[in-house]
Amino acid sequence: MLCVNVELQERRYPILIGSGLLQDEPNYPINQGERVMIVSNPTVAQFYLDTLTTTLEKRGAVVESVLIPDGEKYKTLESLNLIFTALLKGNHGRDTTIIALGGGVIGDVAGFAAASYQRGVRLIQIPTTLLSQVDSSVGGKTAVNHELGKNMIGAFYQPSLVLIDTLTLNTLPKREVNAGLAEVIKYGAILDYEFFVWLEKHIDDLVALKQDALQHCIARCCQIKADVVARDETEKGDRALLNLGHTFGHAIETHLGYGNWLHGEGISAGMMMAAALSEALGHLSVSDVSRLEKLLARANLPTVSPDTMQPEDYLPHMMRDKKVLAGKLRLVLLKSLGQAYVATDTDHHLVLNAIRRCTQTD
Amino acid sequence: MLCVNVELQERRYPILIGSGLLQDEPNYPINQGERVMIVSNPTVAQFYLDTLTTTLEKRGAVVESVLIPDGEKYKTLESLNLIFTALLKGNHGRDTTIIALGGGVIGDVAGFAAASYQRGVRLIQIPTTLLSQVDSSVGGKTAVNHELGKNMIGAFYQPSLVLIDTLTLNTLPKREVNAGLAEVIKYGAILDYEFFVWLEKHIDDLVALKQDALQHCIARCCQIKADVVARDETEKGDRALLNLGHTFGHAIETHLGYGNWLHGEGISAGMMMAAALSEALGHLSVSDVSRLEKLLARANLPTVSPDTMQPEDYLPHMMRDKKVLAGKLRLVLLKSLGQAYVATDTDHHLVLNAIRRCTQTD
Repeated sequence: MLCVNVELQERRYPILIGSGLLQDEPNYPINQGERVMIVSNPTVAQFYLDTLTTTLEKRGAVVESVLIPDGEKYKTLESLNLIFTALLKGNHGRDTTIIALGGGVIGDVAGFAAASYQRGVRLIQIPTTLLSQVDSSVGGKTAVNHELGKNMIGAFYQPSLVLIDTLTLNTLPKREVNAGLAEVIKYGAILDYEFFVWLEKHIDDLVALKQDALQHCIARCCQIKADVVARDETEKGDRALLNLGHTFGHAIETHLGYGNWLHGEGISAGMMMAAALSEALGHLSVSDVSRLEKLLARANLPTVSPDTMQPEDYLPHMMRDKKVLAGKLRLVLLKSLGQAYVATDTDHHLVLNAIRRCTQTD
Repeated sequence: MLCVNVELQERRYPILIGSGLLQDEPNYPINQGERVMIVSNPTVAQFYLDTLTTTLEKRGAVVESVLIPDGEKYKTLESLNLIFTALLKGNHGRDTTIIALGGGVIGDVAGFAAASYQRGVRLIQIPTTLLSQVDSSVGGKTAVNHELGKNMIGAFYQPSLVLIDTLTLNTLPKREVNAGLAEVIKYGAILDYEFFVWLEKHIDDLVALKQDALQHCIARCCQIKADVVARDETEKGDRALLNLGHTFGHAIETHLGYGNWLHGEGISAGMMMAAALSEALGHLSVSDVSRLEKLLARANLPTVSPDTMQPEDYLPHMMRDKKVLAGKLRLVLLKSLGQAYVATDTDHHLVLNAIRRCTQTD
């Protein structure tokens, strides 16, 4: 078992990473008689809800669960309210613990529920997708979507503990494993050239779900993110680097409608757009861009814009991004592989050209 | 103009109290070109929205507004969503400022919107009812209701500034002024005997809206609350004292349906129940209970349970209170006038008897 400690101003919490943690009850900081509400979805629950419930009951917990429908389109205030209703029907007090069992949507919705139920109850995250294991485990971002924008409603709220059982990836669709690898590759690209090189060597092991490679990889990503977040808890500065490819990727997700492309797929194409723009600005070499493209392709990820989206479709979505300040676009770009920076007020024509370079031509 | 500084671990902010502050633009910390979303309701907006907009525009702000329907029953996730929709339609970024112009409902909903829009934007509170001026100005509690319970969904979120224009009380229905006086009397009862005595002398001036008495009174209440909140920002300990009468009062509000009794009216009857229980436990004298009753009655406040509510109706609601821990009722009671304490696990029969003593007999 590996452990990454997230150290924040107000609190610290551990991320435990290993095989079979769902059944390993000593890891759960629950006392006899304490109440727990597991939030999950039917897809994840069929595999893991009984196992987790049994483990928690061995600790003496009084366990209830609530399922919200599966998918990004259910990351809404309505789903949030389902959780509140379950908590209130069960007379849960401020001393209850919410456990998020599932991927990023569950983590975000259950996390925001924990942040706002009675103005805050204890939260344990058990992410079951690679994306959520390397991304939402660290940073305390919780949110739901609004019909006019993604992640527009939420809170910064830290869990007490994150448990990552890498065996859960065995039931994850391959496409989602690959989407998670987009975020993994992002960490190498923005902050850790050595890890980028490690990924070039081990990407096939990760695609094949080799447990040792997965655990090393997840721990490294969590550590990179934990270091960034510790420096910048509420995303005023450095933390923006974690958004490489995201402004483009969110535009793709919003334009296609949530759920048509996976988040990681949008990020993958978005990183290629950011790389193309970085090259146009004289930072990356053609060979750097090509190395990134090859690594993404080996993880079976898209490196160009969706067929049905025109380059002109991007900017209106991008201007609604949370990172827009005073009407100016702020983009994360690369100085080199392993070194990202925030570019403010980049010329819109250059942005459009970079998108065009990553657009399939008929 | 009076000023009370609220000093918290993470930040400090001023509460400015005076006549005509809505028109006094130097008090507004808004820079040229900054965007503002005023959240109000039609009742308050008819009197003050134009004035405030003009004042902000003199500061160079770009001002928009969104109105949510008036009343406690609209303190919902749906109203919250109206605010998000207005912000998103206007492409408001993280650098926008939300100004809550109205009573407690507006402050709570707009405050929670500010806490959760893009995970937090700047908030200025302009409370226009006596209750919100003395209560929600300090403490950073924001919330919406759920059909199964009041204030069950929310956040602790501090404003940057609170502006209290005591002239706004001139358009407030007398019944609501009186309801606000219930919270005022509460501050004296729980923590400040000297202020309780001051109130016994000046309650008629307050009912008559004498400006000097109002300003002194509001500043004193804000200072008492600020001191408590500074000691206990997230309501783990001392802050519970502020809830004298609230567990009973919330039961009344929930039982009758939101809006039939005003919050302050429920608190008034609830304080009498807490006082009767305190007397039964040997803390208050009969004469103390009588002084409290007289002071509340001079402010035209109810001192007994509503006609339509039976003593037995209280406990089921009270057990759903946020202050219930591990299934045990926690009540704020009085050691003496000016000194409150938290009683845990009070015998339910004693509670019921105290409610019976405050029930009208036919």
